[in-house]
Amino acid sequence: MDASPWKKEEDRAQERKIKRAAVLRAAAQVFNEKGFHATSLDDVAARLNIAKPTLYYDALLLCREQRYYVASKDEILFECVRIGLEMMEEAADEVVARGGSGLGQLVAVMRKYAEIVTMDFGRCLIRVGEEPMPPASRKKLRGLKARIDRRFRALIVRCIADGSFAPRDAKIAGFTVAGALSWIARWYRADAALSHSEIADQCIDILIHGLLSRESPKLPSRNVASQRGAGTRARPRSVAVFKRP
Amino acid sequence: MDASPWKKEEDRAQERKIKRAAVLRAAAQVFNEKGFHATSLDDVAARLNIAKPTLYYDALLLCREQRYYVASKDEILFECVRIGLEMMEEAADEVVARGGSGLGQLVAVMRKYAEIVTMDFGRCLIRVGEEPMPPASRKKLRGLKARIDRRFRALIVRCIADGSFAPRDAKIAGFTVAGALSWIARWYRADAALSHSEIADQCIDILIHGLLSRESPKLPSRNVASQRGAGTRARPRSVAVFKRP
Repeated sequence: MDASPWKKEEDRAQERKIKRAAVLRAAAQVFNEKGFHATSLDDVAARLNIAKPTLYYDALLLCREQRYYVASKDEILFECVRIGLEMMEEAADEVVARGGSGLGQLVAVMRKYAEIVTMDFGRCLIRVGEEPMPPASRKKLRGLKARIDRRFRALIVRCIADGSFAPRDAKIAGFTVAGALSWIARWYRADAALSHSEIADQCIDILIHGLLSRESPKLPSRNVASQRGAGTRARPRSVAVFKRP
Repeated sequence: MDASPWKKEEDRAQERKIKRAAVLRAAAQVFNEKGFHATSLDDVAARLNIAKPTLYYDALLLCREQRYYVASKDEILFECVRIGLEMMEEAADEVVARGGSGLGQLVAVMRKYAEIVTMDFGRCLIRVGEEPMPPASRKKLRGLKARIDRRFRALIVRCIADGSFAPRDAKIAGFTVAGALSWIARWYRADAALSHSEIADQCIDILIHGLLSRESPKLPSRNVASQRGAGTRARPRSVAVFKRP
């Protein structure tokens, strides 16, 4: 018997997954560049060098109650924003799982957050956000966002409890941190003179030590900045970087 | 001769101005609550307790090249955002005109900025912003926004020059300040336990002294916080509040 002209179901499922991820990334990029409303699905198809029907019937088919339908632009945006938020939550989970002091963990989460807001889905989350979405999706995303806010707040509460920080309103402090770091998504350009990790370091230095700090901001060496997934180092090196005499 | 049933042209011009301002404020409020795209001009009319035709032909007529036309939703948003930016520029002008140290001026501009982002037009600027606008308007607004960024940057450069701050990248520092303060517009609720000036003080305290600061943040008394338009005080009192031994 000849080989079947159809691919195996598991291969097709895998292929759909890869295509879907490519569509979402391309969509996030175009949303970030042109804005959500100025973006058409034609733009997304053009970015992927495919025809719009290919985009529709090959990559954007969603299944709900056993009926296939084509994802709307709203649904694509929702997915982009959700992925951005998920990346942040996963990064925070990873940092907390590594352990270490509250301050070390806070700085590590800040670094990750600052990095993610310069990436396609993270930028989409901050630059486009939930504003253009229908009320139900907005509510769902606000819930997810609140989880990130609670992460920052919990780490700040820990720093206050262990005496690293003086007592202060952890909610306001958490929002101040999130705001300063999120803003990077608004002004960061990939072709800028400073790398995203240098920008993150300087921004974090201000939040931790303040503008009045009498020392010039210490920038960690590049290999410290890329301490991703260093599971063996129980104590993130960024603590040392941000602890001054 | 009986009095004319028509008002004098100058009275009518004044009335149009007042109505226009009321429409813009109502629009900013509804945009902030529902989002730009979910808002219809019916919502704005309802907020003002007027019928939509009244809104159209009595308050939203614009004149271009001697022809009257009705302002579009895009144009209304543009105006709201432009007013928000103008308020910020005027506040910064006022602070700089009063004189004083670079640090005192920076803190005073930060306070004003934090206050404006909790008000209708300022919130609209941050929460809705230029995202939904056509490319030409976005470009114009980016130019205006860049002026605010340059204000923060110039004051930080001054603080570095006079030795208040250690040398650092003034652009990144300016964006960090603007980001932390702008974010207030995203989470501030008028009915919150803390007033906007208390929130501003705590946020500014973090930016100036850092989270690591060993002292608990000092909150100025309420009358210090409302030092608006105090033209006779050459030196803003907030300097004293933010100077620590």
